[in-house]
Amino acid sequence: MKIGILGTGIVGQTLAGALAAKGHDVMIGTRDPQATMQRESASGASRAPFRDWHKNNPAVKLRTFAETARFGEAVINATSGSGAHGAVEGAGAEALGHKILLDLSNPLDFSKGFPPTLTVSNTDSLAEQLQRAFPRVRLVKTLNTTTAALMVNPAAVGDGDHTMFVAGNDAEAKAQVKGWLGEWFGWRDVIDLGDVTNARGMEMLLPIWTRLYGALGSPMFNFKIVR
Amino acid sequence: MKIGILGTGIVGQTLAGALAAKGHDVMIGTRDPQATMQRESASGASRAPFRDWHKNNPAVKLRTFAETARFGEAVINATSGSGAHGAVEGAGAEALGHKILLDLSNPLDFSKGFPPTLTVSNTDSLAEQLQRAFPRVRLVKTLNTTTAALMVNPAAVGDGDHTMFVAGNDAEAKAQVKGWLGEWFGWRDVIDLGDVTNARGMEMLLPIWTRLYGALGSPMFNFKIVR
Repeated sequence: MKIGILGTGIVGQTLAGALAAKGHDVMIGTRDPQATMQRESASGASRAPFRDWHKNNPAVKLRTFAETARFGEAVINATSGSGAHGAVEGAGAEALGHKILLDLSNPLDFSKGFPPTLTVSNTDSLAEQLQRAFPRVRLVKTLNTTTAALMVNPAAVGDGDHTMFVAGNDAEAKAQVKGWLGEWFGWRDVIDLGDVTNARGMEMLLPIWTRLYGALGSPMFNFKIVR
Repeated sequence: MKIGILGTGIVGQTLAGALAAKGHDVMIGTRDPQATMQRESASGASRAPFRDWHKNNPAVKLRTFAETARFGEAVINATSGSGAHGAVEGAGAEALGHKILLDLSNPLDFSKGFPPTLTVSNTDSLAEQLQRAFPRVRLVKTLNTTTAALMVNPAAVGDGDHTMFVAGNDAEAKAQVKGWLGEWFGWRDVIDLGDVTNARGMEMLLPIWTRLYGALGSPMFNFKIVR
């Protein structure tokens, strides 16, 4: 299927690579594709400049946010929290339409160092902000609670026996996303938390996630809801 | 050993019952013991008036917060978030001294219904507030991330194969608490997140905990960190 991914960082790269390897037709969106391809240094947590990654993944197309949103049968917001509003605005209401938007971003503020705080939490969430700004899009919050390598390969720890969450206002979109998480990556335990306000709980997992990363010395862990 | 528990609600009752059954000498502290024994109705999530519970647990003593803090070789804050400051102030710096204070409380605000928001989060925590107010006490945040029945009996779900956290400034106190969690209740996987600021991550688990309670229809679950 045609999948549009907003964001050229490590999350976007990891998802694009995994989905292209599965035979999907993948496009990555960025503000200025030419600038992204010319960039010499990696941004954020990316390990290499985008163009180096792209040499190894030539089937993945790089276009603008709007072209990518138009292209995708599903659109994935894989930007950092600080980039999320700009990316989805760049995609635009017209191109996004009534499509399913998987929102993976976290409103992390690293300006005071590590661990980060959240720029929005408790009484609101980044997912709700995006859903309010684009009321027609069918936003499903998911995959924000684990590291990129585990998003696309949960079996890499504990034989995949751990948990993912979804939250969003559209029941059909959530059921579709649950199916995709299984088909694309092998997620077996996906809990539907309810409407988009429940993204608060998912984004507020990041403060303990970042601390566990520090305590364990590795991002290769995930939450399992044992019941 | 002598254990003092602040709070007569379901958490205090559950801990007191389990610790007394293990042969420990347990005292529960409340603001006004006589009023607590005369109360006709249950407060908070307690299932029955305290005096009914006490009839079945006569070995557990009921005294003031200060007497309980003086009594305990370890002191456990098992109050609700709204009661925590009053309880620890009632205990007092002199009675608490340099003792280990296990802080189990969560700063939940139910004034706008369920799920609750947090009264403090992101850049501070209830645990830090208490530690700042009583700098000599060796506060260890723990057990706040699961329901009372699982605090004292983790084996009730998933054969006990799930995770507890500790956070606090005193390494020796945390090591002691890790030992107690194992000896008292059978906790096997306890992760030390670091100093007391890491209690932010533990308290910010509550927004997803409360939503999982809603989605699963039961509080009998816990987080396992699969790695």
